Amino acid sequence: MISVNEAKQIIRENATTTRVVEIPLNEAAGYVLAVPVYAPIDTPPFNQSAMDGYAFSFAKWDKYSDFTIVGEGKAGDDVTFEVKPLEAVRIFTGAVLPKGADTVVMQEKITTQGESIRIHDEQLIKGCNVRPRASQTKKDETVLPENHYLSPSSVSFVAGLGIDKVKVYDYPRVSIIVTGNELIKPGQKRTGGEIYESNSYGLMAALNQIHITPKSVEMVADDEEKLTEAISRQLDSDIILLTAGVSVGDYDFVIPALEKCGVQKLFHKIKQKPGKPLYFGKRQNALVFGLPGNPASALTCFYEYVTEAISAFIKRKINRDYILTLAASYTKKPDFNYFLKGKCKGNEVAILNHQESYMMNSFALADCLIELEAGKEYFQKGEKVKVRMII
Amino acid sequence: MISVNEAKQIIRENATTTRVVEIPLNEAAGYVLAVPVYAPIDTPPFNQSAMDGYAFSFAKWDKYSDFTIVGEGKAGDDVTFEVKPLEAVRIFTGAVLPKGADTVVMQEKITTQGESIRIHDEQLIKGCNVRPRASQTKKDETVLPENHYLSPSSVSFVAGLGIDKVKVYDYPRVSIIVTGNELIKPGQKRTGGEIYESNSYGLMAALNQIHITPKSVEMVADDEEKLTEAISRQLDSDIILLTAGVSVGDYDFVIPALEKCGVQKLFHKIKQKPGKPLYFGKRQNALVFGLPGNPASALTCFYEYVTEAISAFIKRKINRDYILTLAASYTKKPDFNYFLKGKCKGNEVAILNHQESYMMNSFALADCLIELEAGKEYFQKGEKVKVRMII
Repeated sequence: MISVNEAKQIIRENATTTRVVEIPLNEAAGYVLAVPVYAPIDTPPFNQSAMDGYAFSFAKWDKYSDFTIVGEGKAGDDVTFEVKPLEAVRIFTGAVLPKGADTVVMQEKITTQGESIRIHDEQLIKGCNVRPRASQTKKDETVLPENHYLSPSSVSFVAGLGIDKVKVYDYPRVSIIVTGNELIKPGQKRTGGEIYESNSYGLMAALNQIHITPKSVEMVADDEEKLTEAISRQLDSDIILLTAGVSVGDYDFVIPALEKCGVQKLFHKIKQKPGKPLYFGKRQNALVFGLPGNPASALTCFYEYVTEAISAFIKRKINRDYILTLAASYTKKPDFNYFLKGKCKGNEVAILNHQESYMMNSFALADCLIELEAGKEYFQKGEKVKVRMII
Repeated sequence: MISVNEAKQIIRENATTTRVVEIPLNEAAGYVLAVPVYAPIDTPPFNQSAMDGYAFSFAKWDKYSDFTIVGEGKAGDDVTFEVKPLEAVRIFTGAVLPKGADTVVMQEKITTQGESIRIHDEQLIKGCNVRPRASQTKKDETVLPENHYLSPSSVSFVAGLGIDKVKVYDYPRVSIIVTGNELIKPGQKRTGGEIYESNSYGLMAALNQIHITPKSVEMVADDEEKLTEAISRQLDSDIILLTAGVSVGDYDFVIPALEKCGVQKLFHKIKQKPGKPLYFGKRQNALVFGLPGNPASALTCFYEYVTEAISAFIKRKINRDYILTLAASYTKKPDFNYFLKGKCKGNEVAILNHQESYMMNSFALADCLIELEAGKEYFQKGEKVKVRMII
């Protein structure tokens, strides 16, 4: 058995694959840039009015003379004419500033006298209410670096440059294989020793939260041959998640089936509760997680370990981790790292009841996992603890 | 002009519609329950072995005698036989405990003597390694309340009850209409006074982050008739987002078009920077936001106001808000509430450069919006400020 930190280290060392894809910009939010973005144009692409008003040349104005209105420019117009000294153009927000003009006075700050206008604006200085060409981006300069996370505002920014495709780190292809003779699908009638299969639901939901749809979800009986077939069909995945059958009992066929498929074991069993039997292996670029069968253990191992592999693939951190204050004291077995279902309130975190690995009722109410590290038995109320948000 | 708080209050008072839908459980993560979930079965549905080992009746054991092995039960088996005193059954994790048995000894804690086993486990007590029937849920009891947020662990829990459909608050149908003669789509060649349309990209991405796909996205010219037609086609939406054309200039047709469509104005203009011209109206159940045309203003108003309406519809908070420490002092106009692009580092938040409402380059790098409230001019380094996370 290895420690939690050793296990995470092994995952990080082996999660070295990424895949770069070019995708439409309107699907790119949440991805990370695989190459920098260069500005193909100046933005704004021209000197642009920031207001509805009148554009003119400030330098040629004596602060007293009126202006003759010689034209109009609204957003979208291809303004080609030029204003001369003491000429002004009626202009609207977003419009091209005519040649010769460098300043816009707001329409609220003028009075009209027939064909001419008089300016009443003490604060007006050269360049007022104008967005100069290239004041946001200059053509050909790097505007977003490689590894930049594409937030909605990044997507809007990139669209404004006229770019409609971006190269990003793709999401991994994930396969889910749940195993167990006892499993039936929710919605069916249960009899005898059957129980409802819930692990694929929890894992799909957790993947869905990070915008990943698994490429396949299968339910396979405790049968080495069938398992071997199912695994071998998914070896083109980036990540394979199996649940149950990872102990060394008479009916635990996951590990022998993985061996038959040529998957190399990288670790098996961690000093933790829940999730002690966690298995991790690799075959070429496919990373394989043998998650425990208990739903709370499976999902805990997803949040603590599978996310490490996904993070490495998509080049961004998935979890929000905090240091919070423990609301009540807790005693645990000293040799094991505990991951406990918790609920945050302000800067405090409470350990929920029903921590057993088959109990999902507390997990359903939890908003975080609290990590109580190995090597320590007693955790006192008020102590600072590591917390990983799961909602 | 009204204050930020007044505007948010008006949105909350008018965002009173919800829609309940029944959806498949494997699509339900992220939704909120519209009705409580009742357990249709006991879980576990039977006394269940938590280990690979041997099941027997503890009370009838004198602590010294050996047990005769009379059968085997593995997960999924319909175990119908009964064990008698000093009989044991070979049992595996997840299996039904045979009638007469109440305790499981782990396989590591026995020695075999031909057909019988001897137990070597000082700590063994009655009920060890058994998950009693109904110890997680009892049939017909409420296990999740109305308004419960369906996290992945909740979904797993509900699946384990055998439930494959849930009634939840649906996401709103959102329509996006971007307006402006100057707009062309990214990817096309730009000339003259044209600029690239970016608002629909930013808004779609922000909606996508909360798992909403807009029902329609349209680009409409500054033409009152065309706008009126476009809006009237979308009046069956729950939320309509328009961008630009909400000022009172000669080419701002959004507000007259909304009036023609029977949309009732609830507010127009807020004492804030950016986003002063924000409009909010309603027609029957459709909530209408007239967002400013500047991309930074439009997206800021989305995060600060549109999310209020979406939150009310889906019955959950969308944003994570924190109180953080300002990294440097800042002076602003006292009458206005400012929303500034910021970047968090630990408990500190820095105000980014380029806060102008047409500047998306800073927004692209921001991870939060910092709110500096109206009625105050100077904000000192080290002061606590409100922060809304946007990534």
